[in-house]
Amino acid sequence: MLAEIITIGDEILIGQIVDTNSAWMAQKLNEAGIRIKQITSVSDDREHILQALNLATERADLVIITGGLGPTKDDITKKTLAEFFKTTMRLDEEALENVKNIFSKYKAPLLEVNVQQANVLENSVTLQNKNGTAPGMWIEHNNKIYVSLPGVPFEMMYLMEEEVIPRIISTYSLPIIYHHTILTAGIGESMIAEEISDIEDGLPSHIKLAYLPKLGVVRLRLSGYASDKEILMSEISAISKKIVERIADYVIIEADVALEKSILDYMQLRNLTLTVAESCTGGALSQTITQHPGSSSVFLGGAITYSNTLKVSMLGVSNQTILQFGAVSVQTVEEMAKGALTAYHSDYSLAISGIAGPDGGVENKPVGTVWIAVANANKVISRKFQFGNRRKQNIERSVTNALIMLFKLLKQDNP
Amino acid sequence: MLAEIITIGDEILIGQIVDTNSAWMAQKLNEAGIRIKQITSVSDDREHILQALNLATERADLVIITGGLGPTKDDITKKTLAEFFKTTMRLDEEALENVKNIFSKYKAPLLEVNVQQANVLENSVTLQNKNGTAPGMWIEHNNKIYVSLPGVPFEMMYLMEEEVIPRIISTYSLPIIYHHTILTAGIGESMIAEEISDIEDGLPSHIKLAYLPKLGVVRLRLSGYASDKEILMSEISAISKKIVERIADYVIIEADVALEKSILDYMQLRNLTLTVAESCTGGALSQTITQHPGSSSVFLGGAITYSNTLKVSMLGVSNQTILQFGAVSVQTVEEMAKGALTAYHSDYSLAISGIAGPDGGVENKPVGTVWIAVANANKVISRKFQFGNRRKQNIERSVTNALIMLFKLLKQDNP
Repeated sequence: MLAEIITIGDEILIGQIVDTNSAWMAQKLNEAGIRIKQITSVSDDREHILQALNLATERADLVIITGGLGPTKDDITKKTLAEFFKTTMRLDEEALENVKNIFSKYKAPLLEVNVQQANVLENSVTLQNKNGTAPGMWIEHNNKIYVSLPGVPFEMMYLMEEEVIPRIISTYSLPIIYHHTILTAGIGESMIAEEISDIEDGLPSHIKLAYLPKLGVVRLRLSGYASDKEILMSEISAISKKIVERIADYVIIEADVALEKSILDYMQLRNLTLTVAESCTGGALSQTITQHPGSSSVFLGGAITYSNTLKVSMLGVSNQTILQFGAVSVQTVEEMAKGALTAYHSDYSLAISGIAGPDGGVENKPVGTVWIAVANANKVISRKFQFGNRRKQNIERSVTNALIMLFKLLKQDNP
Repeated sequence: MLAEIITIGDEILIGQIVDTNSAWMAQKLNEAGIRIKQITSVSDDREHILQALNLATERADLVIITGGLGPTKDDITKKTLAEFFKTTMRLDEEALENVKNIFSKYKAPLLEVNVQQANVLENSVTLQNKNGTAPGMWIEHNNKIYVSLPGVPFEMMYLMEEEVIPRIISTYSLPIIYHHTILTAGIGESMIAEEISDIEDGLPSHIKLAYLPKLGVVRLRLSGYASDKEILMSEISAISKKIVERIADYVIIEADVALEKSILDYMQLRNLTLTVAESCTGGALSQTITQHPGSSSVFLGGAITYSNTLKVSMLGVSNQTILQFGAVSVQTVEEMAKGALTAYHSDYSLAISGIAGPDGGVENKPVGTVWIAVANANKVISRKFQFGNRRKQNIERSVTNALIMLFKLLKQDNP
C-alpha cells in the first residue's frame, strides 16, 4: 500500500515555513503499515495542483493533500479538487454549525467567506474539524483514496489521528505491524550497532531494527510484519530482551516516549519533586518538561537567571563565585543547583549555565561550553560539555543532557 | 526562471527527519529572483529518481538535487544521475585531496568507498566541498541547469552560498522578486480580507497578496515580480501603506520577523529590560524569547512558578489572594507581574496564569482559561482569555497574546 503526500501553499515554496506536516504524517502512516512513495510541495496554482494529483494517482493508492483550505481567496485547493473529481460543492450542515460556534465563541462576525468554509465536495465524506473552521474530506474515487486536510498542524494532526488513520485501517486489510521502541541515552548509534551486531544479523526477515538518533538519545525501533499479532509480539519481545541486556547501562525505558516524560512518570510514581535553575537554556528545559500534561505533580517551577544579578538574588549564588570563576563554571552551576533545591524545596534540582552562542565565547570558554549540575539533598553532580557553534542545537543538547544526568541519579537513588 | 528542488532519501519519506534544507534553499533562490515551482522528496530508488528528474526537466529551468551522496551503498544518486545524462564518472583530483585531508585529520582509515566520493560526473563542473567529503556538481545539459548537492545541511548551505547562487546570477539575467511582509496581531485573516478586499481586488497582476496565519498573528505578504526593482518597490510600498492605514490598530511591524524578535529589537533600541512570571506556560514564554541571539540585552530572566508555594515565595503573591481568588485570577496574575517587576528590577514584566489542560478545569474556570498581565512601574494591564482544550495550543496562544499585550504597552509608552 503506497501513499503520496501533496502539500499545497506558496509559503512552502518561498521558504517562509518549513514543512513539518509531511514528516509527521509520514511517521503516522508508516506506523500504520503504509509506505510513502513521494512527498510533493506545489504552489496555490490550479494547473499545477491538477498535474500533481494526476501524477500522484499514477504512483499511489492513497493521496493525502494538506493546505490551501483557509477562508481567503488565495486558497484554491477546494475548487481545483472539485474540478479534478468532476464534482460540485455542497454545504455541510455540521461543518457550518462548527464554524458558527467558533465565531460566536470568539464573538467575531460571521462573514460569507467563513460560511463557504463549510462547503465540501459532493463526493466526499466530511471529516469534521474540532479544532478549526476548515473541514477535512475523504474521497473514494476509481479505487483510490484521496484525503484533503487543512494545513494548520494541530488541525491536520487531530484529523489524521481521529479520522484518517482509523478509516484507512478499517478500509484496507493491512498486515499487522508491531513496533517496539527502546529509548537509550549516553551512547552513539554506531557503538550500539557494534555492541548488538550479532543480534541484528540474526533478525528474521520480517523483523527490522531501525536506529533513530536525536541529539544525545538514540531510539531503537524493532518493527515486525505478520499475520498473527501474538506470535509477532512474543518474537519481538524476546529480541528486545536480548538487546536490553546487552546495553543495560544506557537503556532509559522500553517505550516510545520522550525522555522527560519517562522521568516525570518515574518521579511521580516515587512522589519526588523537581525544580530548575536555567541560564543559557532560557526556559527550554522547563518548557520541555511542562509540555506534558500532569507535569505539575513533579515539577514545582524554577528560576530563569539570564543575568548574573538574578543568579545571585534568586538562587543565592555568591557574587564572589561569579567574579572569581565566571557564570559558566562548575562552582556557579553547583551553587545554582543547590540554590534551587534549597530555595524552592524540591527533592531534586537541575541547573544549566553555558554559552549558547553565537556570541559570548572567550578563549578558554568558547561558544558551546555548558556546565550542568544535578542535585539532591545529599549530593551535587556536575559535568562540563563542549558542544558546537549553533545556538539552537546547544540549547537542545543542554536540555537533553541535563535530563540524562537527572535520570541516572534518580535510578541510582531510587532503583 | 523556474527551479525545482528534489530531495533524495528514505529518511524523509519515513518521517525520520524533517526536510529543512528545502525551505532554506527556497528562501535563498527566491531572494536571487528564482521561483520554486515544486519541491519533491523521493526515495533512494533508481527508477523513481529518474522519473523525478524527467518531470522536473519538463517543469523547470533549474533542478537542484540534494541528498544521496554519502559513502554507503544505499546512495545511488550519482549512478542514477550518470544514467540520466548518459555520461560516465571521472575522479576529481582536488576532491580526492579533500577527502584524504579530512580522513587524515580525524586519523580514520581511508576506505575504497571514501575514495569513490571524489568521483564526479564527466559532464559536470565540480563544486568543491570545504565542509565534507562529498563534492557538489554543476551540470549544464540541453539548456537546463542541474545541481547536485550533499544533503548534510551545513555542507549544502556552504555550496549554495559560495558556488551555486553566484553561478546562477552570473549565468542568467533574472527578474527582480521583491517580498514585503506586514505582521498583524489581534485580527483574523477573514476580517483582514474583508477590510482590504478593494485593495486586494485592485492589485496589478504582477503583485500577489498572501495571508499567512499562525495562532493569533497573521502575516500579510505582498510579492511582486518586475524588471525594475525601484519601480516594483515603490509600487509595493504604496499598496502596503494603504493596507497598513486600513488596519493600523493591528499592525505590529512591517517586516518578516518573529513577533518576539521585533519586541526584542524595539526594547533594545530603547534600553528597556524585561522579566517574566510564568505559571501555565511553564517556560515557553522565556524559551520563545531566548531562542534569539542577543536576547540577554533585554531579557533578564524570571520565575517559573508552577506551584502556588513558589508564586508566594518567588513573586510575593499573597497567600490570601490565592486562597480567595485562586491562582488563575486577575488578582493573582497582577501580583505576579508586579512581583517580577519589583523583585527582578526590570522596566517591564509579563505574567501568565491559566489552565493549560487537559485536566484542572473547574466549572467557572474551564480548561483554556488564561489570565495575562503586563506591567511597568506605572501600571498593570491584565486580560482574560478563553482558549480551547488543547494544552500545546493553549500554551502557544498564551505566549503570543502575552507578547502582543507587551508590544501594545511598549508602543503606548515609547512610541
